[in-house]
Amino acid sequence: MEQINARMQAHLDNLTKPRGSLGNLEEYCLKMARIQGKVPPTVGKKGVYVFAGDHGIAGEGVSLYPAEVSRQMALNMFAGGAAINALAGGTHWELTVVDAGIAGEEFAPDSELKPRCRFLRRRIRSGSGNFAHESAMTEAQTQAALECGRELARDVKTQGYYMTAIGDLGIGNTSTAAAMMIAAGFSPQAMIDRGTEIGPQQLLHKQQVIKAAITRCGPLSSGEAILKEYGSPDFAMMAGFILGLTGCACVLDGFPVTAAAYIASMINPRVRDWLFAGHLSKAGGHRHLLTALNLEPIVQLDMRLGEGTGAVIGGHIIELGMKASLEMASFAAAQVSDTDTKEQ
Amino acid sequence: MEQINARMQAHLDNLTKPRGSLGNLEEYCLKMARIQGKVPPTVGKKGVYVFAGDHGIAGEGVSLYPAEVSRQMALNMFAGGAAINALAGGTHWELTVVDAGIAGEEFAPDSELKPRCRFLRRRIRSGSGNFAHESAMTEAQTQAALECGRELARDVKTQGYYMTAIGDLGIGNTSTAAAMMIAAGFSPQAMIDRGTEIGPQQLLHKQQVIKAAITRCGPLSSGEAILKEYGSPDFAMMAGFILGLTGCACVLDGFPVTAAAYIASMINPRVRDWLFAGHLSKAGGHRHLLTALNLEPIVQLDMRLGEGTGAVIGGHIIELGMKASLEMASFAAAQVSDTDTKEQ
Repeated sequence: MEQINARMQAHLDNLTKPRGSLGNLEEYCLKMARIQGKVPPTVGKKGVYVFAGDHGIAGEGVSLYPAEVSRQMALNMFAGGAAINALAGGTHWELTVVDAGIAGEEFAPDSELKPRCRFLRRRIRSGSGNFAHESAMTEAQTQAALECGRELARDVKTQGYYMTAIGDLGIGNTSTAAAMMIAAGFSPQAMIDRGTEIGPQQLLHKQQVIKAAITRCGPLSSGEAILKEYGSPDFAMMAGFILGLTGCACVLDGFPVTAAAYIASMINPRVRDWLFAGHLSKAGGHRHLLTALNLEPIVQLDMRLGEGTGAVIGGHIIELGMKASLEMASFAAAQVSDTDTKEQ
Repeated sequence: MEQINARMQAHLDNLTKPRGSLGNLEEYCLKMARIQGKVPPTVGKKGVYVFAGDHGIAGEGVSLYPAEVSRQMALNMFAGGAAINALAGGTHWELTVVDAGIAGEEFAPDSELKPRCRFLRRRIRSGSGNFAHESAMTEAQTQAALECGRELARDVKTQGYYMTAIGDLGIGNTSTAAAMMIAAGFSPQAMIDRGTEIGPQQLLHKQQVIKAAITRCGPLSSGEAILKEYGSPDFAMMAGFILGLTGCACVLDGFPVTAAAYIASMINPRVRDWLFAGHLSKAGGHRHLLTALNLEPIVQLDMRLGEGTGAVIGGHIIELGMKASLEMASFAAAQVSDTDTKEQ
């Protein structure tokens, strides 16, 4: 690993630019070299996976939007009308939407419309249990969803993606993420946020609902137990996906996706080696989770949309750094004088 | 103008996303709507112009690199081996290199190699005068360079670019930028920086050279006078280019380009209406200039390379926001339930 790092640093220092002048882009190249075990690391097709699922907790009135919006937004994504369609298109990511448990009937998007993206049916159950009153999933469902995520990590290899990104979609997902992170030891103050910009009264209600719910169980020490009690199939699939991605870079989106990554890191701390933080979202708790994962966000654009919109922007910037490291001339090849001043 | 803003805000609020959730991307869309006078603003081809020129002050030993590197790096750019080639390619900018006064013989890149980018000869003089001892340019050269920049702004229209970005190339350019900005009233402490990472001793020398040089003239109150005494043809062309771009968005790169923009704003404060700050560079003085211009950088990646590398990344993010505003479905068209909660 140290040898890969040293070789990649030497490669970067030999390119026609002042040393270190590509700043963070050089850090991304170094991490990609470590992930791929290759100097310089290579680029190719990249895929963003949006995990769509419903959350029983939405029944408690914690979101600005009614629960049917999850389903409507998934259909909007199939039709190419969501933000992630435009942003993934503009940054060359292939988009896959995973039905990880949207409430209601099974989707038949092929019959309703010609999807503008890949669609995978991975429904373990329709929505999660309302964690204010019951476990979010059974033990068997939790394991099935984790395994389903690991299997999707194999899909990444089948598709030939060198980099992947994760997005989420589903009314109530910031409440689920907050409850899981509080169960994992983070403070309620830091974790419970306005989500899709609910007002102060609804925020108070959301805080009360989640704080009460979190007393339902005794202390939970494992990632799996937290997923079972306060998670959902989509969160478990995201965690399983991250765990299965060994050797493939994965760019995180905002607060919910990062909460799933935190759960994955409880199961295997090594996941941090292949994770990047695409952006810092406006959601209050996001910064705390990134700090705990020792990840620095690539961009900070005050976005709070989800769907992987921050991840695809950040991931594209990683790729730009890699392209520079692959396409730039060396000092010798370009006959450019390097400095031999060693004063610095 | 207010009407354009209100109409663009209504357009953004009608797209299938929580209000304001695209964060800064929505701000960029609003500014682009004001610049274009169109709702929603449209995208198309975009062009980055790199102004390459030499600086007499390099003769004082203020840089880590010898002066011939300007010429070598311009040739490297023609050959496609510089950082800007890779980054402009990865973000879909057409690249134009302007010879704005590289020292030595006129370039004949067509005969030496097949350029991988557009090349424009706009040489007013070969390099600038060494401002430690003499005026950087004559009055006539200053006016000619400004006019040349304005004429290049017409080239933007001819090429059909809807957005433009500016990069710079030339050994000694941070010294020139610092001297100009000190002459314009900024403090030497804030403006004189390590450039391409010179060491502490060379930095001390650079500070002494620039501080001594700045006493050569009495107070200079106009942008033109500052360009003539402490500028160079490339800086004057960048300022003229910015002044001429009315109605076309222009993305700035790092400290030198932003110094040119500051000079342009002294000549016509309205230029700020069509300027964006592509990134915050690692150069110490950059933040001060952006604050004075009332511009917020789009990304902060600790880059300090120049060539327009930060500008093309930031500009691409503006375009992503515009693509979202053009391609996303409305709530009504996608049959997605909007919230009618007005509590917030």
